[in-house]
Amino acid sequence: MTEYRAPEQDVVISSRVRLARNYRDIPFAPQMNQDWSGETIRRVNESMKDQQGDYRLVRIAELNKSERNQLVEHHLISYDLLKFEQFSAALISSGETVSIMINEEDHLRIQGLLPGMQLERAADLAFKADDVLGADGNYAFDTQWGYLTSCPTNTGTGMRASTMLHLPALSAAGQVSAVLQTVSKLGLTVRGLYGEGSDAKGNLYQLSNQVTLGRTEEDMVKTLIAATAQLADHERSLRETVREDDSMSMLDKLMRSVGIMGHARLMSSAEFMQRYSDLRLLAAMDIVDASLSEMDQLMMDLQHGSLNVRAGEKMSGQERDVYRAELLRDYIRGIATK
Amino acid sequence: MTEYRAPEQDVVISSRVRLARNYRDIPFAPQMNQDWSGETIRRVNESMKDQQGDYRLVRIAELNKSERNQLVEHHLISYDLLKFEQFSAALISSGETVSIMINEEDHLRIQGLLPGMQLERAADLAFKADDVLGADGNYAFDTQWGYLTSCPTNTGTGMRASTMLHLPALSAAGQVSAVLQTVSKLGLTVRGLYGEGSDAKGNLYQLSNQVTLGRTEEDMVKTLIAATAQLADHERSLRETVREDDSMSMLDKLMRSVGIMGHARLMSSAEFMQRYSDLRLLAAMDIVDASLSEMDQLMMDLQHGSLNVRAGEKMSGQERDVYRAELLRDYIRGIATK
Repeated sequence: MTEYRAPEQDVVISSRVRLARNYRDIPFAPQMNQDWSGETIRRVNESMKDQQGDYRLVRIAELNKSERNQLVEHHLISYDLLKFEQFSAALISSGETVSIMINEEDHLRIQGLLPGMQLERAADLAFKADDVLGADGNYAFDTQWGYLTSCPTNTGTGMRASTMLHLPALSAAGQVSAVLQTVSKLGLTVRGLYGEGSDAKGNLYQLSNQVTLGRTEEDMVKTLIAATAQLADHERSLRETVREDDSMSMLDKLMRSVGIMGHARLMSSAEFMQRYSDLRLLAAMDIVDASLSEMDQLMMDLQHGSLNVRAGEKMSGQERDVYRAELLRDYIRGIATK
Repeated sequence: MTEYRAPEQDVVISSRVRLARNYRDIPFAPQMNQDWSGETIRRVNESMKDQQGDYRLVRIAELNKSERNQLVEHHLISYDLLKFEQFSAALISSGETVSIMINEEDHLRIQGLLPGMQLERAADLAFKADDVLGADGNYAFDTQWGYLTSCPTNTGTGMRASTMLHLPALSAAGQVSAVLQTVSKLGLTVRGLYGEGSDAKGNLYQLSNQVTLGRTEEDMVKTLIAATAQLADHERSLRETVREDDSMSMLDKLMRSVGIMGHARLMSSAEFMQRYSDLRLLAAMDIVDASLSEMDQLMMDLQHGSLNVRAGEKMSGQERDVYRAELLRDYIRGIATK
């Protein structure tokens, strides 16, 4: 294996920390208007202009629907940012590890995003941007309550930390709901790939802190790291059990997926997520030699909006399934000849 | 396409002519015993010893179960020959185009077998051996009834002619049973891959003459050739209709089969026959570049008995599925890199 892997990337897809912040002298979301939203965007741009990272400003109103979805699919903005399309924007670093959503539910949602188990580094990225943006001391902050936010559930630290986990063995063993119960006792919650209410497509689960108040940021990150590590170990041990007890059936099932990905002419989004999960498991277990980072990137690139953007047009469902299958065949050929 | 193809091999797998003959001075099957069966075998051997074709004599009693099945799977002997195992034998030409079954239901069953639509040549092969074997004038023959046989349904010409057809488009269109009715009016019958009572695995159908009495051999061959040609044209036109109307779904379905064949770790016999049918259709339609003859050979080689013989041991069902999958992956790799 020559691939560089992020820490614990065999199970952990990515680590994310998001901070909610508001300016004290600008009305909160319910009273937002064109003038104030322009001022928020101006301030963020001004604060960050000398920072490293080659940031680009994206105004949601200037994007078509596919381009908006592409940003959501790549976890650079939230679905909610699209709700405020006349006001909202995002400042995104070229490496896409830092993204500052502007005029979502709060004036600022500062996000640090890294592959694998790198929650502390993701927090560092977010807090570094936070320090710059809040340097003037003009955040809405209360010494008793902490950071004030549009929705009270975010008040306090304003922080939401999350890890995205790939749990095919736990899913196959039907143990995910049991895990959910355990995890909720730690003040954590489990969601699907694209946040609240989304399905766990591709056996991907997002683990995040539920509570923002009454605990320090450091404490929350530590709790999440510990829970993630425990889940990852559980997943790994189940994978090894299957490998030892029933390796031929497992290999057969997973390798068939690779064969289908390399030959199908039509590939729906739902089927793709299942096959991606199979391939990722093979690569994570070092059975197939393929980069996990590339695979996770491809997974986002083959979602609806991203495919439309790549094709340069809005495609029909069938056209998208044809195009997805075509890109997938190219990718699998690339693995096979490596 | 550089492959040499037998005539109409895109639809017609093989052509076969089989002649039933008995010696007048040896008791028929119900009275057969060790001495007489030895005499039959001796006579056949003696008659054919100077003939071209490098014949080998196979005594059924000397073969294990897998070796017996291998000969059936390759259509060199019938299942029925195994019923008379203490007496029966076969003399098989090295090219496997002529096979003389000895002490089956009749003393002799002389078979000519060729790939594709070559019924007249297959008949020539059988009649050439028949001329040699009957040169002494000692066949049981009646001027009114013709060749006398153990079972009256074979009396007369003693000939059964058949073609093996690959009819995936007709099967998919649900038109096979309608075709059956039409064909029976011509005195023809349709069976599965391994004769009477066998399923049409792999969408393979054997078309043969039902009646042996009251028509000349030439007439029967002509009828079968005409019916085969009509069925083949019907199959071809349906294939083209699907290609024009729904080529993407068709390609998707068929190519997925190729992908699965190239990657599966477990392959049952039943699944293999379906996937072979898909691959054969792709090759017949010049979508995939692969030899039809090689593919049809492989189809026989991957049946139960043949696999055991190749492995040199009697395998369990699971072991056979693993071995079949392994040989299939090798074969698909060979196609892909051609």
